[in-house]
Amino acid sequence: MSRSIRLFVSAPLATGAEIAATQAQAHYLGAVMRCAVGETVCLFNGSDGEWAARLATLRRGEASLVVDRMLHPQLAEPDVWLVFALLKRDATDLVTQKATELGVAALWPVLTARTNAQRVNLTRLRAIAIEAAEQSERLTVPAVHAPRPLAALMQAWPAGRHLCVAAERIAAPPIGATRGPAALLVGPEGGFTPAELDALNAHPLVTMMSLGPRILRAETAAIAGLARLQGASCG
Amino acid sequence: MSRSIRLFVSAPLATGAEIAATQAQAHYLGAVMRCAVGETVCLFNGSDGEWAARLATLRRGEASLVVDRMLHPQLAEPDVWLVFALLKRDATDLVTQKATELGVAALWPVLTARTNAQRVNLTRLRAIAIEAAEQSERLTVPAVHAPRPLAALMQAWPAGRHLCVAAERIAAPPIGATRGPAALLVGPEGGFTPAELDALNAHPLVTMMSLGPRILRAETAAIAGLARLQGASCG
Repeated sequence: MSRSIRLFVSAPLATGAEIAATQAQAHYLGAVMRCAVGETVCLFNGSDGEWAARLATLRRGEASLVVDRMLHPQLAEPDVWLVFALLKRDATDLVTQKATELGVAALWPVLTARTNAQRVNLTRLRAIAIEAAEQSERLTVPAVHAPRPLAALMQAWPAGRHLCVAAERIAAPPIGATRGPAALLVGPEGGFTPAELDALNAHPLVTMMSLGPRILRAETAAIAGLARLQGASCG
Repeated sequence: MSRSIRLFVSAPLATGAEIAATQAQAHYLGAVMRCAVGETVCLFNGSDGEWAARLATLRRGEASLVVDRMLHPQLAEPDVWLVFALLKRDATDLVTQKATELGVAALWPVLTARTNAQRVNLTRLRAIAIEAAEQSERLTVPAVHAPRPLAALMQAWPAGRHLCVAAERIAAPPIGATRGPAALLVGPEGGFTPAELDALNAHPLVTMMSLGPRILRAETAAIAGLARLQGASCG
């Protein structure tokens, strides 16, 4: 069975371009995948589509590739953000990986009154997002933003982007497929405070929506909510 | 903030009934939650609804409860099964927990030609399902079946239960909300073999459906597919 190796790179992609692999990519190509010079590797950079490249040099800790031909043009992807109250490390890692697979354009960890976690290793999360994008055959990598207070994010909320809040224990319509710029907001395990809910409800782009009668862990709500929001854009 | 402790028990529930906690439950009530005698605990057994009970005795490793009053009657829950090619331990654990939160009635691990894992600790998986049911406020615990070959399960497939197969790399309609008895089938990371796909396609209750253009890990496909299938039964 032929194998398909995909790497995310930051350089522009065009026929004949020479791309230097990062140290981590060189390790992956050499020590993990045991590639040989001449082997084909797929490259994407988030804007130029997906390209076949030939592994030109591979030495301890260094590798270079020469871009051959385009495999897939860059296509528009769903414009859905995930805004989530920062979770413990394992759950944040899981949400980052799964949200990337499910196609989110951006991840916004936020701090709320009942958020237990405060810190996040952005370098680690971005590496998880890149790996998930490589494996899921996305042509982009989602932006992973630094945590900020929910109120600050809402003050700067962009016009025209609907925000679907995953609500629990209240009557609300089910989360369904959406079109156009959208975002899903998942609160902390302890829920939003009444003041936070009032502020959200007062926002014209916010809709409270339900994921059903069961109480979901925050990371489950994020994954299930994204799966539902993107229902129409698939097929 | 008041806390809500929920325990799954096997005994019938009715006012005045005396329930002996298992050793693990007694440890949880005493050492983990530091309950006091007299504290209220919620009980469910999958058939009698949810009941408030009073912690009557609590000694090292032993606890008993006396059932007080019904809190919620037993209601019909979605009749959705998850059939999944057995995964590595961590992924199987994750799927069991998330599928339980999302309300599945039964989990069927299956073996296919390209399934890498062969064994599963059913006791462990059932404990994960019980804990997830307790936390998600379900009134049932899903059945967790022993692994069997996919072909054997399909030979005994029940009449009237639609099977939605999460398909990749082929044109298929998107997975959407369903009503009535249903099941989601997620294959192994390597996909189904042509012979397995032929057998599935020949089955009158099977429909190939898509989770979108990205390649999802098997555990992500299971969680996202269940979230989509149950879209209509929520609100």
